[in-house]
Amino acid sequence: MTDLSDVALRDLLDTDPAELDAYLDRRHPADLAAELGELPAPVAARVLLRLAPPDQAETFGYLAPDCQAEMAAALDRRSLVRIVGAMSHDERADLFQILSEERRDVLLPLLAQQEREDIRRLAAYPEGSAGAVMTSDYATLSPAFTAAQALESLRLAAPDRETIYNAYVVDDARRLVGVVSLRDLILARPETPITDFMVRDVIHARVEDPQEEVARSIARYDLLALPIVNGGGMLAGIVTQDDAMDVAEAEATADFHAVGASARLAAGLRRTGVFGLYRARIVWLVLLVFGNLFSGAAIAAFEETIVAYVALVFFLPLLIDSGGNAGSQSATLMVRALGTGDVRLKDWGSMLGKEVAIAILLGLTMALAVSMIGYVRGGVAVAAVVSLSMIAIVVVGSLIGMTLPFLLTRLKLDPATASAPLITSISDATGVLIYFTLATTLLPRLAGG
Amino acid sequence: MTDLSDVALRDLLDTDPAELDAYLDRRHPADLAAELGELPAPVAARVLLRLAPPDQAETFGYLAPDCQAEMAAALDRRSLVRIVGAMSHDERADLFQILSEERRDVLLPLLAQQEREDIRRLAAYPEGSAGAVMTSDYATLSPAFTAAQALESLRLAAPDRETIYNAYVVDDARRLVGVVSLRDLILARPETPITDFMVRDVIHARVEDPQEEVARSIARYDLLALPIVNGGGMLAGIVTQDDAMDVAEAEATADFHAVGASARLAAGLRRTGVFGLYRARIVWLVLLVFGNLFSGAAIAAFEETIVAYVALVFFLPLLIDSGGNAGSQSATLMVRALGTGDVRLKDWGSMLGKEVAIAILLGLTMALAVSMIGYVRGGVAVAAVVSLSMIAIVVVGSLIGMTLPFLLTRLKLDPATASAPLITSISDATGVLIYFTLATTLLPRLAGG
Repeated sequence: MTDLSDVALRDLLDTDPAELDAYLDRRHPADLAAELGELPAPVAARVLLRLAPPDQAETFGYLAPDCQAEMAAALDRRSLVRIVGAMSHDERADLFQILSEERRDVLLPLLAQQEREDIRRLAAYPEGSAGAVMTSDYATLSPAFTAAQALESLRLAAPDRETIYNAYVVDDARRLVGVVSLRDLILARPETPITDFMVRDVIHARVEDPQEEVARSIARYDLLALPIVNGGGMLAGIVTQDDAMDVAEAEATADFHAVGASARLAAGLRRTGVFGLYRARIVWLVLLVFGNLFSGAAIAAFEETIVAYVALVFFLPLLIDSGGNAGSQSATLMVRALGTGDVRLKDWGSMLGKEVAIAILLGLTMALAVSMIGYVRGGVAVAAVVSLSMIAIVVVGSLIGMTLPFLLTRLKLDPATASAPLITSISDATGVLIYFTLATTLLPRLAGG
Repeated sequence: MTDLSDVALRDLLDTDPAELDAYLDRRHPADLAAELGELPAPVAARVLLRLAPPDQAETFGYLAPDCQAEMAAALDRRSLVRIVGAMSHDERADLFQILSEERRDVLLPLLAQQEREDIRRLAAYPEGSAGAVMTSDYATLSPAFTAAQALESLRLAAPDRETIYNAYVVDDARRLVGVVSLRDLILARPETPITDFMVRDVIHARVEDPQEEVARSIARYDLLALPIVNGGGMLAGIVTQDDAMDVAEAEATADFHAVGASARLAAGLRRTGVFGLYRARIVWLVLLVFGNLFSGAAIAAFEETIVAYVALVFFLPLLIDSGGNAGSQSATLMVRALGTGDVRLKDWGSMLGKEVAIAILLGLTMALAVSMIGYVRGGVAVAAVVSLSMIAIVVVGSLIGMTLPFLLTRLKLDPATASAPLITSISDATGVLIYFTLATTLLPRLAGG
């Protein structure tokens, strides 16, 4: 990879303009966008305009959404219209979603009517749907074409299309009837009708499908692009593999944050400010404080046992944490497996059976580890209570951790809400109950006998 | 999407063979592979051989590695050689890694010498490296070609290449000197030399680079494929976008499992057996049991305080969990940001400053929530101790959670090892110390005064 990271754009700003231009020329638009994002918007806008016009739109497209909005405010109107006109259609529609109303009102009348309608159409789909992530700059072919005609048509369309490696065959009503790859086109004899070799049973999604399903189909079937149809079966757009990769990454990040008990961050961690992060984190933390009151209440109920056998408190964090740890493991494994589609709702029964077996093995092993410590610190009776509690707590914690993501999915909620901290809180309360109930029941007999 | 999930392959096995064939014909190889994976290997092998020969290799390539190994044992030698010969080169090399020695010895002599060498070469790269995930069936062009010659060369090569949408220009020593897209080729005038329009500064990776970096480059630069060069700058293979998507998904899954304190699972959760999961989970659980002894020891040190003010135990789970929860949030956010490249090692300073500010805000809010409960249950003195402890514990927990992933990265370890359970254990011990130290110091004065 061309590693120019030692020469920072920032240091070149006040030097010889020729040197700056030479640097800009060598830099990939994606890298340049990352560097521009670090500069004040007016400076970044000045640098952007030094690029060749096609590179301007491409570099602008790589900027983070908040940078795009700032930069759009800093650019003069003429340049902005030129850049927006050359952007890929999906990125352009996304930009309009975040532009200030004032900038939008300035821009819209300057665009061609077709572009205005395209932006409105793409912006109308709800966030998170296939419609919201698809682009409308795909290549279509008529079913009446021969291979030679199709190739010529793609040659003409190429400069304005996101991809020409798959072209979609649509009838007069724009209904999707087939797909042709450029590979097959250049292999076919020129006079062959494309209906002779097009794939008719086209894998597709609907505009209202969730975008993570689109990403999953693209990954599963190794597609370069997935066509998206509307209710009438008419082609509405395509999602390309690179956009699917971004969707898959964003979904994995959202699941990560959820299992860490944070709300979804709109921008990345680095670009989110102190208050944005505070808001994303505080809700769960305060909810969990109140959730933990159950553990406290359970402890209060056993105050007499604690005063009688204060050594029990020594094992409290260890036991309740072990339940939480085993439960967090189960929950995290399950959330990810549900997220990638490895495990589905219908697998609950078989996963439950497996989890019980694993949890018993885990509980026995951990009981063995803790029984020795129990014996050293409190004798046979305490060792017995602590070991039995460990087995019960680990099994119960694992089953809670494993079941909650399924339950949330069943209730059409996000399974990743079954975060490690939530599981920990729930297992803590059950752990306290199990531990002190066993202790109150068994210790007087064991210690007495 | 063609949803045939109601008609299960299993139910068609004993019916009319024509009906089975019609079903197989309509099914995508990826879906078929998923269904075959559920059948006993000998049955699955029989079904596979009913497919047309090119579909056999493609469907076989979609099978999970352990299914491939079982199926390879169930197939007759002739069919297996035919399938292996038609597989894509990277999948073929991966298959040889998991075949039994006996099957390998049977197969190798039946393959052409070139194929044997290719398999040995690809299998030689260490797991997790770019070399191990790349494929050798890419298209190359001579720098002496015109556009027309290049197109003709790609037309001839197309059937055996993973992709022809990017073709790599190599000199006589196989050094990578440029890349040409099929799009540019069909747009160029036939007599133009490809050196006139090829991209010379080719984005590439080295065979020894980690595969997650390869996936990240492909996502960052929106590439269809990334060429991989060896030490001498010679082209050794390419990684395609669909393989990059698989790598990114596998890496995210590994990070997920790590933050859930599980070891990496070789197969998916559904395909891993009870003992495999037990092994993946038990190590951390037992380590954390011993880690939690520190919390126990800290509690034992304050036995007198606990006996004197037994109400303090009520707040124990709540306080130590809050530190763990805040720390888990920080750690999970940071692990993901380091995993996607959003945050790098050098950002530690600025992230630390932000984390301190956020943690203080979080601590204050949570102290407010808990002070009321403290007042109700224990009066002003307990409320003060509990609130002060909450602030200190949340700040310390957050800083531990935020710092550990950086520290692990700095030590060239996996930052995702900073799992929620590990952070919880560490914050528990510090939480106990902070809480009881404050209580021992302040309560006698406050309660007495």
